[in-house]
Amino acid sequence: MFLTRTEYDRGVNTFSPEGRLFQVEYAIEAIKLGSTAIGLKTKEGVVLAVEKRITSPLLEPSSVEKIMEIDEHIGCAMSGLIADARTLVEHARVETQNHRFSYGEPMTVESTTQALCDLALRFGEGDEESMSRPFGVSLLIAGHDENGPSLYYTDPSGTFWQCNAKAIGSGSEGADSSLQEQYNKDLTLLEAETIALSILKQVMEEKVTPSNVDIAKVAPVYHLYTPSEVEAVIARL
Amino acid sequence: MFLTRTEYDRGVNTFSPEGRLFQVEYAIEAIKLGSTAIGLKTKEGVVLAVEKRITSPLLEPSSVEKIMEIDEHIGCAMSGLIADARTLVEHARVETQNHRFSYGEPMTVESTTQALCDLALRFGEGDEESMSRPFGVSLLIAGHDENGPSLYYTDPSGTFWQCNAKAIGSGSEGADSSLQEQYNKDLTLLEAETIALSILKQVMEEKVTPSNVDIAKVAPVYHLYTPSEVEAVIARL
Amino acid sequence: MFLTRTEYDRGVNTFSPEGRLFQVEYAIEAIKLGSTAIGLKTKEGVVLAVEKRITSPLLEPSSVEKIMEIDEHIGCAMSGLIADARTLVEHARVETQNHRFSYGEPMTVESTTQALCDLALRFGEGDEESMSRPFGVSLLIAGHDENGPSLYYTDPSGTFWQCNAKAIGSGSEGADSSLQEQYNKDLTLLEAETIALSILKQVMEEKVTPSNVDIAKVAPVYHLYTPSEVEAVIARL
Amino acid sequence: MFLTRTEYDRGVNTFSPEGRLFQVEYAIEAIKLGSTAIGLKTKEGVVLAVEKRITSPLLEPSSVEKIMEIDEHIGCAMSGLIADARTLVEHARVETQNHRFSYGEPMTVESTTQALCDLALRFGEGDEESMSRPFGVSLLIAGHDENGPSLYYTDPSGTFWQCNAKAIGSGSEGADSSLQEQYNKDLTLLEAETIALSILKQVMEEKVTPSNVDIAKVAPVYHLYTPSEVEAVIARL
Amino acid sequence: MFLTRTEYDRGVNTFSPEGRLFQVEYAIEAIKLGSTAIGLKTKEGVVLAVEKRITSPLLEPSSVEKIMEIDEHIGCAMSGLIADARTLVEHARVETQNHRFSYGEPMTVESTTQALCDLALRFGEGDEESMSRPFGVSLLIAGHDENGPSLYYTDPSGTFWQCNAKAIGSGSEGADSSLQEQYNKDLTLLEAETIALSILKQVMEEKVTPSNVDIAKVAPVYHLYTPSEVEAVIARL
Amino acid sequence: MFLTRTEYDRGVNTFSPEGRLFQVEYAIEAIKLGSTAIGLKTKEGVVLAVEKRITSPLLEPSSVEKIMEIDEHIGCAMSGLIADARTLVEHARVETQNHRFSYGEPMTVESTTQALCDLALRFGEGDEESMSRPFGVSLLIAGHDENGPSLYYTDPSGTFWQCNAKAIGSGSEGADSSLQEQYNKDLTLLEAETIALSILKQVMEEKVTPSNVDIAKVAPVYHLYTPSEVEAVIARL
Amino acid sequence: MFLTRTEYDRGVNTFSPEGRLFQVEYAIEAIKLGSTAIGLKTKEGVVLAVEKRITSPLLEPSSVEKIMEIDEHIGCAMSGLIADARTLVEHARVETQNHRFSYGEPMTVESTTQALCDLALRFGEGDEESMSRPFGVSLLIAGHDENGPSLYYTDPSGTFWQCNAKAIGSGSEGADSSLQEQYNKDLTLLEAETIALSILKQVMEEKVTPSNVDIAKVAPVYHLYTPSEVEAVIARL
Repeated sequence: MFLTRTEYDRGVNTFSPEGRLFQVEYAIEAIKLGSTAIGLKTKEGVVLAVEKRITSPLLEPSSVEKIMEIDEHIGCAMSGLIADARTLVEHARVETQNHRFSYGEPMTVESTTQALCDLALRFGEGDEESMSRPFGVSLLIAGHDENGPSLYYTDPSGTFWQCNAKAIGSGSEGADSSLQEQYNKDLTLLEAETIALSILKQVMEEKVTPSNVDIAKVAPVYHLYTPSEVEAVIARL
Repeated sequence: MFLTRTEYDRGVNTFSPEGRLFQVEYAIEAIKLGSTAIGLKTKEGVVLAVEKRITSPLLEPSSVEKIMEIDEHIGCAMSGLIADARTLVEHARVETQNHRFSYGEPMTVESTTQALCDLALRFGEGDEESMSRPFGVSLLIAGHDENGPSLYYTDPSGTFWQCNAKAIGSGSEGADSSLQEQYNKDLTLLEAETIALSILKQVMEEKVTPSNVDIAKVAPVYHLYTPSEVEAVIARL
Repeated sequence: MFLTRTEYDRGVNTFSPEGRLFQVEYAIEAIKLGSTAIGLKTKEGVVLAVEKRITSPLLEPSSVEKIMEIDEHIGCAMSGLIADARTLVEHARVETQNHRFSYGEPMTVESTTQALCDLALRFGEGDEESMSRPFGVSLLIAGHDENGPSLYYTDPSGTFWQCNAKAIGSGSEGADSSLQEQYNKDLTLLEAETIALSILKQVMEEKVTPSNVDIAKVAPVYHLYTPSEVEAVIARL
Repeated sequence: MFLTRTEYDRGVNTFSPEGRLFQVEYAIEAIKLGSTAIGLKTKEGVVLAVEKRITSPLLEPSSVEKIMEIDEHIGCAMSGLIADARTLVEHARVETQNHRFSYGEPMTVESTTQALCDLALRFGEGDEESMSRPFGVSLLIAGHDENGPSLYYTDPSGTFWQCNAKAIGSGSEGADSSLQEQYNKDLTLLEAETIALSILKQVMEEKVTPSNVDIAKVAPVYHLYTPSEVEAVIARL
Repeated sequence: MFLTRTEYDRGVNTFSPEGRLFQVEYAIEAIKLGSTAIGLKTKEGVVLAVEKRITSPLLEPSSVEKIMEIDEHIGCAMSGLIADARTLVEHARVETQNHRFSYGEPMTVESTTQALCDLALRFGEGDEESMSRPFGVSLLIAGHDENGPSLYYTDPSGTFWQCNAKAIGSGSEGADSSLQEQYNKDLTLLEAETIALSILKQVMEEKVTPSNVDIAKVAPVYHLYTPSEVEAVIARL
Repeated sequence: MFLTRTEYDRGVNTFSPEGRLFQVEYAIEAIKLGSTAIGLKTKEGVVLAVEKRITSPLLEPSSVEKIMEIDEHIGCAMSGLIADARTLVEHARVETQNHRFSYGEPMTVESTTQALCDLALRFGEGDEESMSRPFGVSLLIAGHDENGPSLYYTDPSGTFWQCNAKAIGSGSEGADSSLQEQYNKDLTLLEAETIALSILKQVMEEKVTPSNVDIAKVAPVYHLYTPSEVEAVIARL
Repeated sequence: MFLTRTEYDRGVNTFSPEGRLFQVEYAIEAIKLGSTAIGLKTKEGVVLAVEKRITSPLLEPSSVEKIMEIDEHIGCAMSGLIADARTLVEHARVETQNHRFSYGEPMTVESTTQALCDLALRFGEGDEESMSRPFGVSLLIAGHDENGPSLYYTDPSGTFWQCNAKAIGSGSEGADSSLQEQYNKDLTLLEAETIALSILKQVMEEKVTPSNVDIAKVAPVYHLYTPSEVEAVIARL
């Protein structure tokens, strides 16, 4: 009887009898296979730190980009399918540039995040802008606007939340616990850097080096740390 | 024999042999998993109160928005998929703004509700405005127009009803019973606030705090309570 | 062998081997679950009476609309999916307004009914105006034009019939029998009101009150009875 | 092995391995369930006669239209899905009006029939004019043009034939036999009326009355008989 | 294992693992059920002869058209689905008229045949000109152009061949054998008429009469024989 | 488990789990059923020779075209579905004509081949130019341009190779072996003709005659041999 | 239960329950069947070397192109479906030409690689530019721009990485190990040529000759080695 029932409502983006959207749940599985990324918000700005899986010594570490600039006041860290993330980031870059052009001022971090999620929500619709499946990626969006620093977390369902600190990817469970223990609102940016990297270190199988992690801050402008700046943070652990 | 029959009429938005639309029923299941929201209409205005599930202490409570402004005279509380609700609210905001621009006066609450439901009804049609599945969200729409205060309730089928009081979400069954007991037409707005929050308290597993509930009123303009205003209502319980 | 056969001709709007259209038949099932509505034509005009299921005391009875005005000389009662009915009525309102604008005179009741049925017939076609499934609603269309009063009955297949009296919805079988017994061409409008409501009373489980029935007439203009006018008819039973 | 084969060629409008089009065959089944209609051509003009199934005494017999005018020189009787027939007739009316407008003369009966069949043939194509399934209706098209009177018969496959006499619908088998026995080329229109109605009487379960049959002629213009004219033919039986 | 394989490549117009196109093969089956048609080319012109199945004495024999004019120098005989053939012939008529209009001279017989086959080849493509299945018809195209008389044979795959003589339809196998025995390049048109009809006579179950066969020639213009001309050929057998 | 997997990736033009495209492989099967064609490149020009299967003595041999001219400097031999080949050749003719018109010089043989393969590659895409399945044909494209004579071989996957000599169709395996034995770069055109025909003779079941083979050369312009020219080559064997 | 679940989310480009994209994984299988290609970056420029499988001595080796020029400062080596690679390369050539035209300067190697991957990512979307399946090809993109020499590696998922050295195709596993052993940043271009070819030699079954390998460099402009230049490298092994 149950089988017959399902024949009336199948599709890529449809509800199961229990009210679930399986493609979204499966995309979330894809992210659980991804490398770990961590974000922390302080009063001075936001810190992002990511693990980079360098599968071969012949790969150029700097070409494995897991933190990208969206606009000069917004950056994001990602976990999941990198090609999907690039599409979302490219979309966000166009949106923020258009906003600057039309209104003569930067787009707020929340509006930028909403624009990303609008695109993510409409998978399976068949129109030109959307994909035929959910975007298999989660983002940590760090930004600074008229409301000060902010950190957003998005998932493949097109939902987003504002956070003080958040971890995504394969090590997110352990990292989130550590963040809850170590986070407080009065952290300095310097302390945030140290916490982010020390937690990342715990969940990574390999030794942390300037080649296999990336760190960036938005304080108040986006800056990706140079290898020597990363080395300096490692030294502080 | 029954199996053969079904082969002539399958699709995302089609009737079952008993005259049922399963995708709509499944979407309603999604709402039963959602957080509880309550609305009460009084002569002075309408009160909305919602539970906010803060899954992590690192989440920014104010970014978990379950009550949103549509226009200055209309607000809505939601339960179900938040990303879907945002799409509906965004659609309603455009409609009410267009109405003000074209006619120089606010859109009535019923017309706004109808506009939301028109969009919800046409899922699976493949055109640009509609989704490929029902919107997995129920709304309580509170407003104030030339007919005074009003409260509407919508479900994923695109149907709506006008109510004096209504609860949606996982705790709606118990909450609706309590509302029937405690509601009367002569409630003051102050009494409505207290009733809404005391019923919400019963169905929530956690202790009620200004972080995990939101309250708003339309009386006659939309106002989302500040944490201290929420605190004051809690104090009255 | 039979199974193989069906593989050449499946679809939402296709014939079964016996020449049947199942989606239409299933939609008719949806109507059998709906509330009862009754229409009677007299020489003085047409009367419509409907049952309103008020599932909660907190619902605003007047917001449960099962009789709607199409144009000032046409009204309709409905049974089935109310959201579908609203789409059909809205379509008919646009058609009658356009007709008045283009020709400077009201659209006839038959043309209005045909326009509704044209939309209903073309489900599953994928064009912008049609739905992906049959409209799950039956209508009783009461009107008055140059040919005097008339009553039409439509079903989800897009077929319509002109009637002297007709009942639709869950209690239609019993109500139709009673109508055949009590109807004659010389009924006054007053007698028609009484008959409609007395038959509705028989098929309703609850006591009849001004809150749970609606009555309207087109004689020669559409008029929805006020609660006190309904009360007066109840008193005559 | 046979099952595997069919997987390469399924669709709504596709051939079975034996070279058959099942949807067309199933639509023909729908017509076998329809009421009987009869056409006879004489030198003076063409007679059409149909059974009307009046399922309830409350139905307005004149609203059950099974004979319709296409243009002043063409009429048609139908059996099967009436809503489908209305779409075809409406299409033919537009075609004949356009022809008169463009060429200043009436469209020939054959061209009108061809236009109807072109629409019927192209089901399942997905374009705006065609349906997603075959039209579930057969027509007897009676007309009079520069070639004198003519009678055409169409089926759901979009094929048509010119006939001297023809019956369609549930009683067509018996009626066709009777027509072959009684038809000759020298019948007067008066004799044709009597034969048509007497054969219809044989296949109908109920007693023939002016309410449950319709008669029309094209001689040389379309005329639908009034109840008293029908009464007169009945009297001659 | 074989079953799994087929799941990657199903469709209306796709290859089977053995490199076959089943819909085309099934359409060819449809033609094997059709009435027989014969064509013969002589130096004086081309003769076409077809069997007409008159299923009822009430059918107008002249309305069962199995030989049609395409242009004044081209005619064709058909076997299979007549409604499909009409669509192809209509397409060819438009093409030949357009050619005359654009170039001031008749289209060659080969170009006309190619135009027909282009349409036939592209079934299942979803564009406006093509059908969703193969055309279920074979044609014998007789014509006369600057290269003298010619006879083409087309099948549902969109392939065509030039022939001296050819039979299609249910009796084609036997008829083709007889044609090979009796054909030679020096036949007169008169002899060709006699051979065509005598072979048709062998494969028909009924006695040959001017009502159940049609004969036409293109020599050098298209001419469909009158009943008395057919009678004359029958007399010569 | 394997079955479940395949449910995520089925389609006409999709990879199997082993990375194979089955429709392309099945189309290649279609070519293995085709008649044999042979091409040889010499310094003086290119020779093409094909077997023609004349299934009936009543077929006009010259109408079975298996070698066609694309432009005056390019010709091609084919094996597989002839109707598909005609579409490709027609496409190539338009491309080469457009090139001459736009640039005032002939299109190179490689560009012409690439244009054919671009069309072949994009099957199953649903746009206007492409088919819903692979083209079931292989081509040997012989040409002469600024780089001298050249011979290309294409298959249904849209891939092409430049060859010195190549055989396609049902006898290609044996023919290719013979070509490798007998080919050398210093062959004269006359020797190439003899080799091509002698190899064709080996793989054909019937005796070679001017009716059942065609020969063409591009040296440097396309020329299809007359029956007497073919006779002369046969005489040299 | 698992089976039922999958029915809500099937499609060509959709996630499996474990978060995998099977079509992409199957396309990667296609590449594992391809011939081996190797790239090495040095400070002086980038070297590409590929194996060419010459399946028949009659094939023209130079027409088996596995290394192609994109722009004068970018070339690429490929493994997998050559017809797919040609489409990607053609797309990249248009992009780089457009960039030169619009901005008056060469496109950077990374932007060119991103443009290729954008096209690769969007398979199954149904728009004009994308394919209905992933591109079954991997590319090694060698280039030289304002940032000096660079080598990129792309796979069918639309992801790309920057590398110092990389092997793709059937022999990639062994070749990658050898590259890691032999690569260092101070290699000269001459040493890189030797290493590339010596590794290719190890994974090839046949003896290395100027006919069955191709070598190219971008230093700083693209240059495909002539047979004698290849011969010289072979001589150095």
